[in-house]
Amino acid sequence: MSNNEKQQQLQEIKKKVDSPKISSSDVKQELINLGKSIIKDINKGENPKIELSVRGLSNVIYNTKSKTLSLGEKTAQRFFFNVAHAKKFLQTIEVASICKNLLEVQKHASLRDVFYMAKRTIPNTKINVVDDQKESDKAIEDLEIITEFSREQLHVNANKMGSVAGKVVIEDSGDIIDWSKLGSGGWSIPSNVENIKFKKVDAKYIMYMEKAAVWERLHEDRFWEKQNCLIMSSQGQTTRGIRRLLQRLSIEHHLPIYVLADCDPWGWYIYSVIKYGSISLAHMAEEMAIPSVRFLGVTCDDIVNYDLKRHFIKLTDQDIARLKQMQQYEWFEKNKLWQRQFKMMKEFGAKVEIQALSSRGISFISEKYLPEKIKKTEFLD
Amino acid sequence: MSNNEKQQQLQEIKKKVDSPKISSSDVKQELINLGKSIIKDINKGENPKIELSVRGLSNVIYNTKSKTLSLGEKTAQRFFFNVAHAKKFLQTIEVASICKNLLEVQKHASLRDVFYMAKRTIPNTKINVVDDQKESDKAIEDLEIITEFSREQLHVNANKMGSVAGKVVIEDSGDIIDWSKLGSGGWSIPSNVENIKFKKVDAKYIMYMEKAAVWERLHEDRFWEKQNCLIMSSQGQTTRGIRRLLQRLSIEHHLPIYVLADCDPWGWYIYSVIKYGSISLAHMAEEMAIPSVRFLGVTCDDIVNYDLKRHFIKLTDQDIARLKQMQQYEWFEKNKLWQRQFKMMKEFGAKVEIQALSSRGISFISEKYLPEKIKKTEFLD
Repeated sequence: MSNNEKQQQLQEIKKKVDSPKISSSDVKQELINLGKSIIKDINKGENPKIELSVRGLSNVIYNTKSKTLSLGEKTAQRFFFNVAHAKKFLQTIEVASICKNLLEVQKHASLRDVFYMAKRTIPNTKINVVDDQKESDKAIEDLEIITEFSREQLHVNANKMGSVAGKVVIEDSGDIIDWSKLGSGGWSIPSNVENIKFKKVDAKYIMYMEKAAVWERLHEDRFWEKQNCLIMSSQGQTTRGIRRLLQRLSIEHHLPIYVLADCDPWGWYIYSVIKYGSISLAHMAEEMAIPSVRFLGVTCDDIVNYDLKRHFIKLTDQDIARLKQMQQYEWFEKNKLWQRQFKMMKEFGAKVEIQALSSRGISFISEKYLPEKIKKTEFLD
Repeated sequence: MSNNEKQQQLQEIKKKVDSPKISSSDVKQELINLGKSIIKDINKGENPKIELSVRGLSNVIYNTKSKTLSLGEKTAQRFFFNVAHAKKFLQTIEVASICKNLLEVQKHASLRDVFYMAKRTIPNTKINVVDDQKESDKAIEDLEIITEFSREQLHVNANKMGSVAGKVVIEDSGDIIDWSKLGSGGWSIPSNVENIKFKKVDAKYIMYMEKAAVWERLHEDRFWEKQNCLIMSSQGQTTRGIRRLLQRLSIEHHLPIYVLADCDPWGWYIYSVIKYGSISLAHMAEEMAIPSVRFLGVTCDDIVNYDLKRHFIKLTDQDIARLKQMQQYEWFEKNKLWQRQFKMMKEFGAKVEIQALSSRGISFISEKYLPEKIKKTEFLD
């Protein structure tokens, strides 16, 4: 992809995400519209219905132009007077009402909170609106599809996780926060970063890593200062708060993002989710994906080049199954560089963790491995 | 316990933990002494040995005076020329050498890092010094027992997790950090808080909670400002960094600590670990325990008083087994208030999550439940 194309792609995403700036009253209005359309059905004496895109792999398409996943054109209607639909219909409306209330009082709830708020017994019955969090979670995803607003914009937050450090000054909830002056801890990334304002961004790139312990290593070594970058970390899968923070820095400040993860199918999938979006949230992929993200390591070549074979961990049956699955994903299928990696890992029959680099010395990762890889631009796209 | 006794207890802990201030060269010296004692054995032509306390429940005692767990007087010797001991002996020495190196270069490693640093093949053999992280973890715990210094003092860090907010100003790594001015995220608690200096502490108590989502709820409601307290959270079990931070604020600034956790055996055990220490780390319990900690909720009485029975989640077999186990722990066995709770939960056959309070309203927890419980001093000790 040329630089020109990249810029164009970023512009398109930027348009969707930021312009026109969406206010919480816009979001509320969309929920009110949903309610009105149902009342209209009722007044016309029709079976009340909600129309929404079909989810699931059968309707997930890989957009080769925008390089992100998205939902296809298959839609379905959900009716109130339909034994198979009635409960889901009710759940969607109940959760819409909860979100409208959250927007009105200007507060945010977690997925679990929403579950408990929705979990009440329907009067004169023994039936609960929801019995399991999976049901309210699905209803929130449905609302994302129906309203085209994200969960965060509906004031429902994901889990809070992760830290960041580097030469960035932000404004958040009226506070001015300098990410370079927060001691050994760094700034704790909230679950919702929509209202953060970037006041100053002085960094050449973002190093995102899957492990908090690696973040602490780089932070103690003042990697962000020496390399003039940001270091950001979650613990395991990347939360939506972090993905949006990465995306906003990519779009608004054109910072390249490099991903540092274990050399195993799960670590690689962390990169895949940040870059292309996730299958389960394909309806949000275009809003959440960051096509410019690059994988820095750990690659199978690194294992050879940095003498890490003695730290091989045998692939489990699950690892092998996951590897096979990923190999066949459309966005990896025609990617020769990645197919080569998949093949190498299969031949090794083994995976390697980031921390294996510590066997070469406690600061080998920050003083040699990372600077060398960046200098040689050894990235996988 | 009278206030006087409490003060005395705190003084004793304070003495151990802070006075005389331990420098990293003291810690290094202890490791050098260990090495010297082995060389002495060798020079005398004796079988090199390490002496250390026996671990495991058989040697864990509950000190009714200090109200903490600790190791008993059973000791064991580990010999180099003993087929059953040789590998563990080598592992302990190897890890001691890694820690000495970390102290020399003034850097910190994670448990996983130490594993990879120790994982090397013994020359002319096919045997690795360690094959599994459990082995190096055990060796670090052994070193804690042998040297009487904590893992953190040996420059080995636990996992980083959790956030804090409130009117406290600290100095850390040369930065001045105001915990009340960090936006919606808060300060990200590092894995090691030994070198933090408290510059200003303006709070009446600490509210510690097991769940990050609850922390975000209280933070959005500015609970810490309205109540003049600190809010601190992990996600799941309390990390050692957080426990030490709680303890330092308790000892150095006499802040009461209230624990807010799920009403289930696991939530209650979170409280137990903070208060009495954990069984697996009994050798560090006296250093880590905070006897003054109080359990605020959620209790079985809260379920009744706040009408939460409709959010019952049936106890699993594991829950019931854990409940039975906890009921028999010495520190709970004679505690009538806790025994009553255990009994109630058994009768309910059910548990309840903190977030069930959200069913009463999104800010019910911060506006009614918590202020009411604190005002009525409804604590469990």
